[in-house]
Amino acid sequence: MAQLVLIRHGQSAWNLENRFTGWWDVNLTEKGIAEAKAAGAALKAAGHDFDACFTSVQTRAIKTLNLVLEEMGRLWLPVTKDWRFNERHYGGLTGLDKAETAAKHGDEQVKIWRRSFDVPPPLQEKGSAFDVSTDRRYAGIPIPQTESLKDTIARALPAYEELVVPQLKAGKRVVIAAHGNSLRALVKHLSGISDADIVSFEIPTGVPILYTLDADLKATDRRFLSL
Amino acid sequence: MAQLVLIRHGQSAWNLENRFTGWWDVNLTEKGIAEAKAAGAALKAAGHDFDACFTSVQTRAIKTLNLVLEEMGRLWLPVTKDWRFNERHYGGLTGLDKAETAAKHGDEQVKIWRRSFDVPPPLQEKGSAFDVSTDRRYAGIPIPQTESLKDTIARALPAYEELVVPQLKAGKRVVIAAHGNSLRALVKHLSGISDADIVSFEIPTGVPILYTLDADLKATDRRFLSL
Repeated sequence: MAQLVLIRHGQSAWNLENRFTGWWDVNLTEKGIAEAKAAGAALKAAGHDFDACFTSVQTRAIKTLNLVLEEMGRLWLPVTKDWRFNERHYGGLTGLDKAETAAKHGDEQVKIWRRSFDVPPPLQEKGSAFDVSTDRRYAGIPIPQTESLKDTIARALPAYEELVVPQLKAGKRVVIAAHGNSLRALVKHLSGISDADIVSFEIPTGVPILYTLDADLKATDRRFLSL
Repeated sequence: MAQLVLIRHGQSAWNLENRFTGWWDVNLTEKGIAEAKAAGAALKAAGHDFDACFTSVQTRAIKTLNLVLEEMGRLWLPVTKDWRFNERHYGGLTGLDKAETAAKHGDEQVKIWRRSFDVPPPLQEKGSAFDVSTDRRYAGIPIPQTESLKDTIARALPAYEELVVPQLKAGKRVVIAAHGNSLRALVKHLSGISDADIVSFEIPTGVPILYTLDADLKATDRRFLSL
C-alpha cells in the first residue's frame, strides 16, 4: 500500500484574472499563498508526512510546495523539479482572458479547446509576449509549442513512471505539487477515468488529493483533504 | 574560470538572542527574511546567475536559498540539500545564550570553545531539549554529537568535493547557502586561510561572497557583494 498526495498550486495571478496561463510563469496571489500554507497546516494536523517531493519548473507550483513543506517542518526533504509536470501548454491562447479569447476565436471554438481531449489550441503568433521557448530553464529540452490534454498526459505520465513510481515501490510517501492538467494526467491514470470524463474533472487550487494505492499502484482510495 | 557564490543564511531567531544554535532548527527572523530577499535582488541586479544550488538540511539556510532564488526568478533551479553543509554542532552548548554559557562554564572556557580550531564543546546532557539525534532527517546518517571547527571542516569539505566540484568543473555557476562554520570550511579551503586565522574570519548573515576560481578551483578573487 502506497501513499501519494497531489496538490494543485494555490491561486495564481492569472487564475484570478481568468487568463490562459499554461507555461507563462505567473506567481501566486496572496490568496494562493494562504491556500498553500493552509494545505500544509492541514496535512500536518492530519498526520501526513512525506519522504520525497516532486514539482514542475513553474514558480507557482514550486512555491506552493515550499510553503506546504515549511508549514510541515519539512523544507529539508528532497525536491525534484521536472518540466514534464508543467501545466498544459496553451499555445496561442496563453495570456488571453475569457473575453479576449471569445472575441478572437468565438465561444464555440474556445469551448472545444477547453473541453476536448485531443484538440490543441493554435500555435503562438511570432513575437508573442508570452513565448517561453527561449527561457533558459528549457534549454535543450524538446518542449511543446501547444498541447491538447492528451499531449500533456503523454509527457506527464512518463515523468511519473520514471521518477515517482520507483519511490512509491520503495515505500516512500510522495507529494506532487503541480497544475490542473498535469494532475489530471495522474488522476486519469490512477483512478482509471475515461478520456471524455477527465476533461471536466475539476481540481481545486490548494486542496491536497490523498491517494491510497495498492501494490500495483492503482487507487484504492481517493479523497480531498478537509481543510 | 569558475564562479561560486557562498551565502550565510539571514538572521535567525537565535542569532538575535545570541544563543548557540548549531543543529537546532530555528527559523529566520523578519530581518533575516529581508536580508535574504535583499541578497537575491542584489545578485540579480549585479547580473549574477546560477545553474546549480546547494544548501544544508536546516530551515534557515534552505529558506534563505529559496528567497534568494525567488527574487532572481530562479526557483526552478535544481537544489541539493546535504546535512554536511549544516552548521557546526555545538553539543552541550546548543540552546544556551552567552550569559547562561558563561555562568555554567566560565568565560575563559567559552572563549576556548568559540575561538579554538580543534576543541569541541562538551556533549549534550541526556534528555536535552535540543537533541536532534532522533530527528527523521538524520536517520541512517552518522551525525556528530559535538564538533570543533576542525570537525565541521572534515565533513563539509568532502561534500564540496563530491557534490560541488564536478559542477564547477563542468562550467556550472554554483551558489551554496549555508552557515557560519560550514562556510568557514569552504573559505579556508578556497582562500588558503590558516587554522589560527579561520576561527576569527567573520561571515555576515545574508551577504553573498563572490568567488572567482581558476582552473584548479583555487580563488583568484573573493569579495562581498555590495548590497
